[in-house]
Amino acid sequence: MNKIVQCVPNFSEGRNLDKIETIVSVLKNKDGFKLVSYEPDADYNRTVVTLLGDPVKMIDAVVEFTGIVLELIDMNTQTGEHPRMGAVDVIPFIPIENVTMEECIEYGKIIGKKINDAYQIPIFLYAEAAQKSDRVSLPNIRKGEFEGMKDKIKEENWAPDFGVAEIHPTFGVIGVGARIPLIAYNIDLKTDDIKVASNIAKAIRNSSGGFSHVQAGPALLEQRGHVQVTMNILDYKKNPIYRIFETVKMESARYHVEVMSAELVGLLPKAALLNSLRYYFAVHNLKFDKEMSLDDITKYAIQYLQFRDFDRFKIIESYI
Amino acid sequence: MNKIVQCVPNFSEGRNLDKIETIVSVLKNKDGFKLVSYEPDADYNRTVVTLLGDPVKMIDAVVEFTGIVLELIDMNTQTGEHPRMGAVDVIPFIPIENVTMEECIEYGKIIGKKINDAYQIPIFLYAEAAQKSDRVSLPNIRKGEFEGMKDKIKEENWAPDFGVAEIHPTFGVIGVGARIPLIAYNIDLKTDDIKVASNIAKAIRNSSGGFSHVQAGPALLEQRGHVQVTMNILDYKKNPIYRIFETVKMESARYHVEVMSAELVGLLPKAALLNSLRYYFAVHNLKFDKEMSLDDITKYAIQYLQFRDFDRFKIIESYI
Repeated sequence: MNKIVQCVPNFSEGRNLDKIETIVSVLKNKDGFKLVSYEPDADYNRTVVTLLGDPVKMIDAVVEFTGIVLELIDMNTQTGEHPRMGAVDVIPFIPIENVTMEECIEYGKIIGKKINDAYQIPIFLYAEAAQKSDRVSLPNIRKGEFEGMKDKIKEENWAPDFGVAEIHPTFGVIGVGARIPLIAYNIDLKTDDIKVASNIAKAIRNSSGGFSHVQAGPALLEQRGHVQVTMNILDYKKNPIYRIFETVKMESARYHVEVMSAELVGLLPKAALLNSLRYYFAVHNLKFDKEMSLDDITKYAIQYLQFRDFDRFKIIESYI
Repeated sequence: MNKIVQCVPNFSEGRNLDKIETIVSVLKNKDGFKLVSYEPDADYNRTVVTLLGDPVKMIDAVVEFTGIVLELIDMNTQTGEHPRMGAVDVIPFIPIENVTMEECIEYGKIIGKKINDAYQIPIFLYAEAAQKSDRVSLPNIRKGEFEGMKDKIKEENWAPDFGVAEIHPTFGVIGVGARIPLIAYNIDLKTDDIKVASNIAKAIRNSSGGFSHVQAGPALLEQRGHVQVTMNILDYKKNPIYRIFETVKMESARYHVEVMSAELVGLLPKAALLNSLRYYFAVHNLKFDKEMSLDDITKYAIQYLQFRDFDRFKIIESYI
């Protein structure tokens, strides 16, 4: 049985489409894995790439991709809404089929060493791959971002897992990790008042007392003209999407701000939608069929969770 | 300026009113502190006592009270919905005015030693008074309850902070602590299906991924004929009552179960109601006056948070 992993490298360019095409070109039409999607975001100035397939074949291609990014992106002139510490910011491996978390941790170590050997970019291992308890949390590593990392990496406690204690001058550093599927989820608010998004983010995120597996912050989408609560859901089984969505609606009521829509960055597993649809079906007294088709799941997810820019190809199971 | 602490000893009898009167009689009409309330709960088979005033005078009276409880309650025949590990189950000290948390920790140590010296009842120090990290959480200490404590206390890690590693054969053990005001808060559900309360408790409590400062479980109130989600809110600033109340309503919608009412056990500080009223006033576009009277706070708390059996004497500030 073939091993299937998902790998979701993120790079810090979301505006210059020529550059983005050049960068992702080295991941297209490869043997053994698929480039499932790449999603540039102009406000975040960041592109999320999703790969699915054979981990061994993927590793060499991602090393090559990192080399292209190194040539094309200079972090000294990069700005955007999304926090970032490197030109390739993170490379997480996620077990999908016939592969264990332990193997994904191993893939992380292999690619971390290869990238550092090839380009002298320092690597921090995070999430399940973390070698120290304060590196489990990616925001904890990323705190200070590219600009702050110059000094932070020299602190005794922040020596990188691969490489010397000095950032790459134009690239920065990379977080390489292994984790269960994380849901990058944003809720759109019909206001341009960043304080509203900030207050709501505080109400729901773990670091200020909210749900245990939610990281959240505010973001202003200038091009779209509104703010969003931008989130990672680290465990969708314990913190299902519907509960976060409904809690955000409840909180936004005090600001008389409409929750317009929501978006997913990257992919999510079918089970993460089914466990939320189960809630809405129960509320509306509808018969729930957990064997429903991916097209039906997509339709109901748009209806109840108000996803925009959403289709069945957001669901991992569409590819396997 | 007088030091004012709140002390909220709980004892494991909520049915036999004669016994309850005898027990609390030693706390009535004392010099230096007030017996603010005592609230027997037949289903929980437990009475929560609230004292307010001079900590030094209070300590000797609570030692005496513990002696009466020792005479009148045998835990070998006690049962009830509320988890418990002793005939007096907990004795927490809470700083209210002109007193620090450090002083409250000291009062805990003084009373713990006095009780153990007088009656040979083992004492565990918890919350801010905890001497070990796994004793901060009271449920963690209480796990196994009176029945399980016989063996648990003999484990190396569970030797008591005062006394020998053997429970008192009829009394059990006591948790003595210091903490910020905790809100003992229960939400009534119009169903006798304990599974519904259990599922909702799981959705909101920290231990299964919910709000960071919420402990919650299900309880069946046989005499009232319905279940409730029974909670401690350990930090009402980070997890305000309204957010928990609204989340419980949202979750109960999937079971088509009505949230009937809510209750507070013991007292709560005015600020804990004001920060929730602020939400409802904003939602309803009403002008919020944080200097409103205790009577107004009471009225709006009943209106918006659906408290039953609630009056201004539930608010600590009514007594000072």
